[in-house]
Amino acid sequence: MLSKIPSSIGIYGNKKNALKLLSKIWGKHGTFTCTVANTLTSTIPGISNAGDTPELTLFTGPADAELLSIGRAICINGVPINPGGIPTPATLAMAALQLSDMSCFIINGGCKIVPHVPFFDVGATYGEKIITGKAVNNVKKIFENGKILGKALAKNNKFLVVSESCAGGTTTALAVMLAMGVIKDNIVGSSSPKNPKKLKNKVVADAFNVANIKIGDLIHEPLKAVELVGDPMQAVNAGIIIGASETIPVIAGGGTQMSAVIAIAKEIEPKIIGNVIHGTTRWMIQDTESDICAINDSITNDIPLVYVNMDYSKSPHNSLQAYEQGYIKEGVGCGAACIAAIASSSGKIDCSMIYNKVHEIYDDLISK
Amino acid sequence: MLSKIPSSIGIYGNKKNALKLLSKIWGKHGTFTCTVANTLTSTIPGISNAGDTPELTLFTGPADAELLSIGRAICINGVPINPGGIPTPATLAMAALQLSDMSCFIINGGCKIVPHVPFFDVGATYGEKIITGKAVNNVKKIFENGKILGKALAKNNKFLVVSESCAGGTTTALAVMLAMGVIKDNIVGSSSPKNPKKLKNKVVADAFNVANIKIGDLIHEPLKAVELVGDPMQAVNAGIIIGASETIPVIAGGGTQMSAVIAIAKEIEPKIIGNVIHGTTRWMIQDTESDICAINDSITNDIPLVYVNMDYSKSPHNSLQAYEQGYIKEGVGCGAACIAAIASSSGKIDCSMIYNKVHEIYDDLISK
Repeated sequence: MLSKIPSSIGIYGNKKNALKLLSKIWGKHGTFTCTVANTLTSTIPGISNAGDTPELTLFTGPADAELLSIGRAICINGVPINPGGIPTPATLAMAALQLSDMSCFIINGGCKIVPHVPFFDVGATYGEKIITGKAVNNVKKIFENGKILGKALAKNNKFLVVSESCAGGTTTALAVMLAMGVIKDNIVGSSSPKNPKKLKNKVVADAFNVANIKIGDLIHEPLKAVELVGDPMQAVNAGIIIGASETIPVIAGGGTQMSAVIAIAKEIEPKIIGNVIHGTTRWMIQDTESDICAINDSITNDIPLVYVNMDYSKSPHNSLQAYEQGYIKEGVGCGAACIAAIASSSGKIDCSMIYNKVHEIYDDLISK
Repeated sequence: MLSKIPSSIGIYGNKKNALKLLSKIWGKHGTFTCTVANTLTSTIPGISNAGDTPELTLFTGPADAELLSIGRAICINGVPINPGGIPTPATLAMAALQLSDMSCFIINGGCKIVPHVPFFDVGATYGEKIITGKAVNNVKKIFENGKILGKALAKNNKFLVVSESCAGGTTTALAVMLAMGVIKDNIVGSSSPKNPKKLKNKVVADAFNVANIKIGDLIHEPLKAVELVGDPMQAVNAGIIIGASETIPVIAGGGTQMSAVIAIAKEIEPKIIGNVIHGTTRWMIQDTESDICAINDSITNDIPLVYVNMDYSKSPHNSLQAYEQGYIKEGVGCGAACIAAIASSSGKIDCSMIYNKVHEIYDDLISK
């Protein structure tokens, strides 16, 4: 077992579980997956910054999928950006994937805008605005298909990374975790340093009213919570995590959106504990506007947070430095992709190599 | 390098190339894929026996996909059968996959009936009747997406099996190989021992008239041949074979439908030679109503036929014995799945083990 971990990686929560899992995947070959989805919740003005305008947020996940698969976006010109030109965290995930030559599959977790690259279809359709109180269709079917897919992906891999790109997803995460009583307050993240907490609270409160539920009502009915006030990515990814972690270690990658997925998966199948870590970034851990560590405390520290110590403070690009000022912070499994690259290379890949690769990719993308 | 091959396997064509490829995959872990698709050509009465009625032929591929993924069909009751109750060759592919614990992914190569299990989507839509002269939409896109998928699948596998289930596919294979001038006569297979050659010839002749082409006209335009008179599976699988065989060995599995795919792939990218074998069954090789060996001679013996010596003549079930009388013979990559199971187990799995497993699966399926 690994006695110590490289300085590129940090741990919050059960350190022994984290080291045990990292030891299992050290030097091993895994597969990265990204589940892209849409929830119309992201088109409520002000909710999501993952896109230059509310409408463009629907293109962010699919464009991220195209970037990961073929290195360029097809469904939009250029790359997904937040207002101010801050590039998608797919740039970081791409760097980690390219350095480690990891295989990567896209999963359609319910897209209105369908990526123009091959992807796994699990029968998911895009999510409605949660204020309808009927957010997700066919939740059981897409969860079960996620499980089947997780089992299938486990057969030929030493570990699996499960991640997501779904604009508006912190609002649906907030709703689901409140419905499950995992959190009592709004401590989820945002891709903006000005986390629009009031608006998110209002949207979630409206959704709860229409769905006729209160905080903690659905503590043992996570899929019901997804159906009423969540997004389809959550059901699909919870299924994949449960299916794959039966036999291989899983890194569930993302910010507080993935916390919600882990909470759902752990409630349905507590046996995932011991074979799952939550991969994320230092930016997420240190965010003053959200508290992913407190959420982890509430779900279980036995599914520890393992974060990559990426640091863009010396970047020549303001748009990348913005990550240090609370922008973006996570998404497209960028933290987990880095953890996976570091682990699968037995620590040969480190933050400095990834940093250089990100800049190479970024320079290449903006030159186009 | 393997000096000799086990008695469960036979070779036709360039034996050195076959042994070289089998040596590369001996004891190695690969992934099986099955590309399921529909062409409305199968609904022309008399063309296809892969289904109890012309309409049911559209359900055969999707039901096969469900069988491979979860062990039971959802889109139909029971399992796909030919008239007379002869079960789908998926039963044989399942046996090989279960014995070798091989991972298996379904690819939607253009389905009208969509399987109720996870599958790869490459943007393919079902094929029209070839007598329209406009058989396949978006042929370049689905070919290119196939290439992307092939490359992605190659990253985490030591070898890949590419196969198909597409009722009506021998007629589209006939049309494409005639258009390319690969064959001059109707020597393609059929899932019936009474190969309806006259009807197939008439349908192909009508298609050529409408498309305004003659035999051999499209010798260097294989994707054009697919677009006019082929089926979407052909374009997707040709792409996958080309994409994957850049880096790993590929077993292209099937009967003369797969011959057409190999002809297309080899015309577009001759570099596939050396990294591809055509996996099939003894039943196919010995069929008196078709001549897969002559087709192989015409395409190139350097992509050799490697066949499994399965023998159902002692089966207690008439419906399985029917395979010895010229029924079914191939499909759902059953021959290639057996070759892959034998090779990946370093020869520990043999025809006798597979035979027993087929009967176990068959007994289980008919008891339901």
